[in-house]
Amino acid sequence: MTTVSELLQSHPQRDDIDIDVLSECIEACSACTQACIACVDACLGERDVDALIECIRTDLDCADLCTVTEHVLLRMTHANVAVVRGTLEACAVACKTCADECAQHAEMHQHCRTCADACRRCEAACNRLLEILG
Amino acid sequence: MTTVSELLQSHPQRDDIDIDVLSECIEACSACTQACIACVDACLGERDVDALIECIRTDLDCADLCTVTEHVLLRMTHANVAVVRGTLEACAVACKTCADECAQHAEMHQHCRTCADACRRCEAACNRLLEILG
Amino acid sequence: MTTVSELLQSHPQRDDIDIDVLSECIEACSACTQACIACVDACLGERDVDALIECIRTDLDCADLCTVTEHVLLRMTHANVAVVRGTLEACAVACKTCADECAQHAEMHQHCRTCADACRRCEAACNRLLEILG
Amino acid sequence: MTTVSELLQSHPQRDDIDIDVLSECIEACSACTQACIACVDACLGERDVDALIECIRTDLDCADLCTVTEHVLLRMTHANVAVVRGTLEACAVACKTCADECAQHAEMHQHCRTCADACRRCEAACNRLLEILG
Repeated sequence: MTTVSELLQSHPQRDDIDIDVLSECIEACSACTQACIACVDACLGERDVDALIECIRTDLDCADLCTVTEHVLLRMTHANVAVVRGTLEACAVACKTCADECAQHAEMHQHCRTCADACRRCEAACNRLLEILG
Repeated sequence: MTTVSELLQSHPQRDDIDIDVLSECIEACSACTQACIACVDACLGERDVDALIECIRTDLDCADLCTVTEHVLLRMTHANVAVVRGTLEACAVACKTCADECAQHAEMHQHCRTCADACRRCEAACNRLLEILG
Repeated sequence: MTTVSELLQSHPQRDDIDIDVLSECIEACSACTQACIACVDACLGERDVDALIECIRTDLDCADLCTVTEHVLLRMTHANVAVVRGTLEACAVACKTCADECAQHAEMHQHCRTCADACRRCEAACNRLLEILG
Repeated sequence: MTTVSELLQSHPQRDDIDIDVLSECIEACSACTQACIACVDACLGERDVDALIECIRTDLDCADLCTVTEHVLLRMTHANVAVVRGTLEACAVACKTCADECAQHAEMHQHCRTCADACRRCEAACNRLLEILG
């Protein structure tokens, strides 16, 4: 399967940006969206769903923000730096919030542990990309 | 049809927030998403599409960010203020960027004029909500 | 605010389609997305969340399908009838499924009643548009 | 990074479905969304954008439908077979339509070739999952 990095390299107007850092962030957003949506659904299937309301809530926001961030980052023609920065900052906050919440249920539920990990990786990837955007 | 304001009033755990300002922002995001998607498509149907590339580009980002902002704002159970703020800030930047670009084609194309207006209204609604979030 | 119908009328390549039926379907999708997302969130805030798992589940699918249907319908340049039909059919099924489920909680919860109504209206609007697509 | 297959295996209420076929379809949807969004953006950066209008148009629909299909498939608690089937059928049509269009520009543009491949793989994965859903 074509990697995100190969996808970006076929672009006619690549901005002067580190493709590896960008690709890693796009892939982290994609993985985090999947982990959050799966975690919402798994939480809804648990017996102690009452204890997982906050987790479901932060998962929903995080999935939405990671999806939009992935899509914005995949566009490089005349990318607007202020829009990209704002999106990455919002995504990093949503990932941190969701990771902190999921971590509280990580010992009990594998899906919360997996989701917390995906959120931390995505938060870090957003922050790394924010750094090189200057 | 039920208004957004009525929808929000049926919620069991309404946070202590001005429902009118919140509803107005949700509706402005919805209208802006529609205007941006329609503007992309209308631009693709114009003869001078070459002159509208930047417009299509900013429309796509703005539509994505308004969609996610609308969805995040519709959730009020344990809303996380930092996530809401980050999302609103990113949305306001995307709306401003798109409004500025569409305004340059507003004399030529009705859909760009309509889109610029929807973006300005949405940017203002996001900023108003940011103010009352404190 | 500009209506969806006005938006569509500013398009340079309007297909030969009844703008009123199309606009009504777009607006019904938008209202249904909002009702479903708000219903998920309101359900998560109820004490009897255990009884609402299936409702939350159908709301999530329905919100996603109404969102994509709204976006697909807003594009009229070279619209592909098979894609539009497939999308409308999937949306109508999701709306019917969600309406049936929400109707079971309609006496207990206003948000489920509102959501069931929005789903029924959207299902009907999708079916009407499917009819005129031939 | 956790694979989609591992994600699905941590779910408390796995339906009786072949996790490999399901995971492959989710991953194909994700890859196809990325290829379509990147292809829209790359097309907008090409000199012969006039020749790529139809390609951009089918990419936009296909990206939206693959995104929603990925999200619906990630939910397994009380999955509604009729909704899943309708979504997969719509997605397969969008993928076929987009693959046929992108294939026409595949010799000229690498991003169209990559996108056509991703669409074909996703169409096949949707059809395979439809088969085992019975």
